[in-house]
Amino acid sequence: MRKLIMGIDIGGTKVAGGLVTARGRLVKSLILPTHARRGYAASLSQIMAVIRQLHDAAGGPGALEGIGLLAPGPLNPHTGLVINPPNLPGWKNVKLAEKVERQFGVKAKVENDANAAGLAEVLFGAAVGYRHVFYVTVSTGIGTGIIINKKIYHGSNGVAGEGGHVSIDYQSPYRCGCGSFGCIEALAAGPAMARRAQVRLIQDHLAPSLLRDLTGGQLNRVTPQLIAQAAERGDALAKSIVEETGLFLGVWLAGMIALFDPDAIVMGGGVAQIGKPLFQAVRNTIPRHSINPHLARRTPLLPAKLKKNVGIYGAAALFLRAGVEAENF
Amino acid sequence: MRKLIMGIDIGGTKVAGGLVTARGRLVKSLILPTHARRGYAASLSQIMAVIRQLHDAAGGPGALEGIGLLAPGPLNPHTGLVINPPNLPGWKNVKLAEKVERQFGVKAKVENDANAAGLAEVLFGAAVGYRHVFYVTVSTGIGTGIIINKKIYHGSNGVAGEGGHVSIDYQSPYRCGCGSFGCIEALAAGPAMARRAQVRLIQDHLAPSLLRDLTGGQLNRVTPQLIAQAAERGDALAKSIVEETGLFLGVWLAGMIALFDPDAIVMGGGVAQIGKPLFQAVRNTIPRHSINPHLARRTPLLPAKLKKNVGIYGAAALFLRAGVEAENF
Repeated sequence: MRKLIMGIDIGGTKVAGGLVTARGRLVKSLILPTHARRGYAASLSQIMAVIRQLHDAAGGPGALEGIGLLAPGPLNPHTGLVINPPNLPGWKNVKLAEKVERQFGVKAKVENDANAAGLAEVLFGAAVGYRHVFYVTVSTGIGTGIIINKKIYHGSNGVAGEGGHVSIDYQSPYRCGCGSFGCIEALAAGPAMARRAQVRLIQDHLAPSLLRDLTGGQLNRVTPQLIAQAAERGDALAKSIVEETGLFLGVWLAGMIALFDPDAIVMGGGVAQIGKPLFQAVRNTIPRHSINPHLARRTPLLPAKLKKNVGIYGAAALFLRAGVEAENF
Repeated sequence: MRKLIMGIDIGGTKVAGGLVTARGRLVKSLILPTHARRGYAASLSQIMAVIRQLHDAAGGPGALEGIGLLAPGPLNPHTGLVINPPNLPGWKNVKLAEKVERQFGVKAKVENDANAAGLAEVLFGAAVGYRHVFYVTVSTGIGTGIIINKKIYHGSNGVAGEGGHVSIDYQSPYRCGCGSFGCIEALAAGPAMARRAQVRLIQDHLAPSLLRDLTGGQLNRVTPQLIAQAAERGDALAKSIVEETGLFLGVWLAGMIALFDPDAIVMGGGVAQIGKPLFQAVRNTIPRHSINPHLARRTPLLPAKLKKNVGIYGAAALFLRAGVEAENF
């Protein structure tokens, strides 16, 4: 009998878990609330409850290859330590992998979400068949994962792959959550798109825009979704925000191609759902900012394939051998 | 008897070669003019003459572990192909590694200079004992080498590690040789420093500066060396150019630390010879632009150790096993 892999995606609001086959098929899944605000003991107990139920459904420790755990950062994938995540109040230097291993007698690994999602895309998502992949998810923040030879590159302290905090405009007035300026996250993530639209609506205060109607004139109601919607309906200001987002991502990815010379780039996350207008703007920009435009044009920019349950797949991917073929995608 | 490694550094003006022990000691070296302008046959013959003399000095093919060849780019280290280097007129898709292997019966590899120099620093230079190292050489251009697990990371097409063409200021008026704007090479390499000083002398045309005297008022005579000299003598404008160079390099390296989480950064090249004032400015900047200032501060920024003959050592490093101890540095 082929062994199953358990993937657990621990978020601030819910714990999602699943059993995945060696070929990447999800055979059982389960969600419980995290109860993060009730503190460490309560949230740990919810996580353990999800693992327990899936463990029993799988048929005990002998049926499991491993348990992959995606936890909120900061964490250390080398040691399985969850350090002090803002999303999990009361957690401090928790040896989560060790705890799970001891309780269930199954090998466990802890990983951050972008790294794991990148690996999952390579093993059974958009980048099957590629070895060196730069993965990016653009949503509330910008997370990246560096996959080299179908493995996550972790760096010296396990915190490599923070590509969202590479600045393409160090003089930018847009401050990043990390304290620096012009990081791609501060320019192109969802909240950054909304901020740029707000600034434009104020500066160009006479310009008509659907965004004024869609938000009832309340600037703080601008969202990337509304921008995408207005752009689709032909709104010039909204379109320019989408195009500018593509420009920023393109300049940044040109740099990533120069550094990594990847087989492919995979782009996912909520903002990437804008789809063609955004991807086209990125693709137009990359060669114009590349040392080797021909090569840059040939590096595929693929939309992420794993959307629903990407966390479970990502966690499970930590125990999948590279090279397995996708079964069900 | 321990085998020797031959390192050949092919430049536009000279071919430097040497025999290096497995522990990184140079036991014999030799230089001939490249005669690049006389065309393909002439320059190839000079290269082969250097290899022949060293081959005979070593005691024939049995005495050699391999021949490392640093050639001007673009080239493909996977196939040993030298594509069409501007510095070697008449060369077009030359299978240099294959040619050398066939002629001498010894395994040969072709590599670019920054990658090889980075590897040499890890194997027997400034970064001995480190596994993941980001190497940068700041001179006429900015070359980088990504060393992962004591090996050169080549990427998909063998052209990874072009970190000089990562832009930190895509809106910068400073155009890069690659066509993009604000690449670190366009801001912080030697010629870029000179250009920035020239612009400042023009803009702030009433500001006194030693640079006006040192160049006899001829702006095109400004060099990084003169800037360093003036800065050392306390010239405010020259000092600000050095500090700005450190700021640019620091912003950029903060991004490289976020991506690679390296054990160490090694910085060499002519501009790095400015030494302390430059390194201090870089070190001050990095944490201020880092997502993890504590970690960034702990990542050592080391001056390169291999200066003279770095090309020969770099070429030889292609055949050195990781983990050997330095003998003579």
